[in-house]
Amino acid sequence: MKETITLGLIGLGTIGTGVVKTLQINKSILEERIGKKINLKWVADLNTDLKHNLKIDPNTFITDGRKIVEDPDVDIVIELIGGCTAAKDFILTALKNGKSIVTANKALLAEHGKEIFQAEQSSQGQIGYEASVAGGIPVINTLRNGLAANDIISLYGIINGTANYILTKMSSDKISFEDALKKAQELGYAETDPTFDVEGIDTAHKLLLLGSLARETFFDMNDIYIEGIRGITEKDIAYAAEFDYVIKLLAIYKKKNGVVQLRVHPTLLAKSNLLSSVNDSFNAVSFRGNIVGTNMYYGRGAGELPTASAVVADIVDISNTIVSGNITKRNDFRIPRANITVQDMDDIENRYYLRFGVIDKPGILARIAGILGSLNISISDVYQKERRAGDTVPLVMLTHKAKEKNIRLALNKIDKLDIIRGKTVLIRMEAP
Amino acid sequence: MKETITLGLIGLGTIGTGVVKTLQINKSILEERIGKKINLKWVADLNTDLKHNLKIDPNTFITDGRKIVEDPDVDIVIELIGGCTAAKDFILTALKNGKSIVTANKALLAEHGKEIFQAEQSSQGQIGYEASVAGGIPVINTLRNGLAANDIISLYGIINGTANYILTKMSSDKISFEDALKKAQELGYAETDPTFDVEGIDTAHKLLLLGSLARETFFDMNDIYIEGIRGITEKDIAYAAEFDYVIKLLAIYKKKNGVVQLRVHPTLLAKSNLLSSVNDSFNAVSFRGNIVGTNMYYGRGAGELPTASAVVADIVDISNTIVSGNITKRNDFRIPRANITVQDMDDIENRYYLRFGVIDKPGILARIAGILGSLNISISDVYQKERRAGDTVPLVMLTHKAKEKNIRLALNKIDKLDIIRGKTVLIRMEAP
Repeated sequence: MKETITLGLIGLGTIGTGVVKTLQINKSILEERIGKKINLKWVADLNTDLKHNLKIDPNTFITDGRKIVEDPDVDIVIELIGGCTAAKDFILTALKNGKSIVTANKALLAEHGKEIFQAEQSSQGQIGYEASVAGGIPVINTLRNGLAANDIISLYGIINGTANYILTKMSSDKISFEDALKKAQELGYAETDPTFDVEGIDTAHKLLLLGSLARETFFDMNDIYIEGIRGITEKDIAYAAEFDYVIKLLAIYKKKNGVVQLRVHPTLLAKSNLLSSVNDSFNAVSFRGNIVGTNMYYGRGAGELPTASAVVADIVDISNTIVSGNITKRNDFRIPRANITVQDMDDIENRYYLRFGVIDKPGILARIAGILGSLNISISDVYQKERRAGDTVPLVMLTHKAKEKNIRLALNKIDKLDIIRGKTVLIRMEAP
Repeated sequence: MKETITLGLIGLGTIGTGVVKTLQINKSILEERIGKKINLKWVADLNTDLKHNLKIDPNTFITDGRKIVEDPDVDIVIELIGGCTAAKDFILTALKNGKSIVTANKALLAEHGKEIFQAEQSSQGQIGYEASVAGGIPVINTLRNGLAANDIISLYGIINGTANYILTKMSSDKISFEDALKKAQELGYAETDPTFDVEGIDTAHKLLLLGSLARETFFDMNDIYIEGIRGITEKDIAYAAEFDYVIKLLAIYKKKNGVVQLRVHPTLLAKSNLLSSVNDSFNAVSFRGNIVGTNMYYGRGAGELPTASAVVADIVDISNTIVSGNITKRNDFRIPRANITVQDMDDIENRYYLRFGVIDKPGILARIAGILGSLNISISDVYQKERRAGDTVPLVMLTHKAKEKNIRLALNKIDKLDIIRGKTVLIRMEAP
């Protein structure tokens, strides 16, 4: 009978530090929950300065992660270095050596998950990746277990805290994207290179995992339509508010008539929808199951301790299966990707927010509405306030449901009209 | 190797019907998730008319639940008859016979859980009870697994859909408790005898389970302070709104300085708090963990299919452990109750909403504030609008934090003043 669960942690950044702290703060309750002692035998980081930030035995600290994945004592390797090179190598070697993995590395799992989860299936180990999506909110456990009775019809996620913070600030302080980004960087919410967060790539990595769990297959990044928030202006946020909507960067998964949609884009959400109240760096995911209806989960999606909460929950879960001596392989991604159709963006149907820059002259509305109508797009709401004859003024419309392809055709035509200045802004609307 | 998981269901009411439907609608995906066939061998109900509501083999339908708990084929007994007599007997017999249990019976678990969970520990079976709290929201799975890294510091639940529907209607339609209750009864949200729902007893049953899981002990119903919503008037809801608060029936668990609070009462919540937006018959639970911070889970807390979602999730979970051949006993309630102190209501500290009926004369505010001040209670907000000299008018105050004991002493004195008409209304305030 095993008396101790032995851990090795690679990567002492923000989350790694949080994990070490959590294992210290809650040591006794965690050991009681597992029924065994927990030994954090190794902590590895290339930066040797980091060991001074924590109260750990200096002999625990090493620079070479390889030592951890090769140590026969280690039961669980906690991979928190991020990136797709060394991390992948460590994980595959650890699995080969019969160890289990806990990771928060969504980029790696999204880009190389197929290979990694296949390696897990043929190994003695398990992979826990709760921390890879929505930080401290246990959405993966919820999908795998809590909602196990359901066919997931749709899910909507606000799962990038940086983007959500920027959109919240733009709205509350009526400032531009650039100014809000600067604030986010000052507060440490956004990195110097914010591409992954503001371009929707990080959101797409997480959507790939959630959507794959929901559909029980493993999708590819190419399956996801991705549009970031760089194009959103404080004006659009203000106009959306006039119609009682807010703009959020949403991850969307839908399953309808046998086909699947996977997309990340800025989205108008009605203020009456609970997701629209998810502000600052908070995350939330709403799931719609064919039995349970709509559920929503809300909490901190990032940060040292919230993310550590998810990492350590996986450690407890895997430790319990190690203690019981029985590792059941549940193939969460059992359906071959080839058996599933992902819908082309051209074919999706949505409501749309459109902002035209028009030269204010009589008959403009008729010309625009005429082109929209000829493509079966009908208008539900119009907003035009700052009218000054002859000037360029904004004309904002919300449409009823229309095919994306038709909207694109219509905007192509409209943007060529002599009364139109600049490129028309298009933002999709959703009613989760 | 087992090829089939055999189920027997006792009680074909609302939830039972939903479970049969769920097993039919999602049969293939459930069997794929378990990796085995599912056979619903028996459905038992005393009312033989009920079998006509469902497409089931007539031979499946029986009237005697005993046949199910004694049938050696049955792996999992689904107990959905409710109540504390026959249900308890069925569960204990089934456990003795090595079967596992799935139940939604919060009253039984709250009143007799100690005995039942002890029987589980010494049996070959397991008990799944996700459906007993918050219907389709997997809060028990979340507490046991998703938040396993945390010491739970507090939890706040809106976990009775009937009471929440009534309070929501009183607020939106500006109607009395009695009228809102009547509407709830017409819609089937409230039973003819609504005592359990409106007196807070059902909420307390569920809080007992959540609080026990959070503290890893098993509490007693006597540990919970219970106050229902019958005393709430549409006036109080309107005055609360003037201060930007709503009134909700909350289940509250807190752990502070080693002592625990367990209480159910109407509560003023700031409109800015996400829980205050949980309306109609929806449920939500917010948890605060020492690592994760605050998380919130929202969804349908009742109804045929949402509750069936939780029952069937437990069936999937238990089936997976049966298939793997390894039933690990996790004693969720491992700490002896005797080792834990539950705080006396006199000693809790809260902010308070107070509504006095006063004869409008000069100097009243000074007399009331004087008594409050003498007991260390300071006032944060005052509202008095409808002033008519000599008449009885409402005077509403919000206090800063004060000891419950002091508030009671103060109101005892104040209610004896010649300027006071009627009993002062007290509603506690919380900031989850």
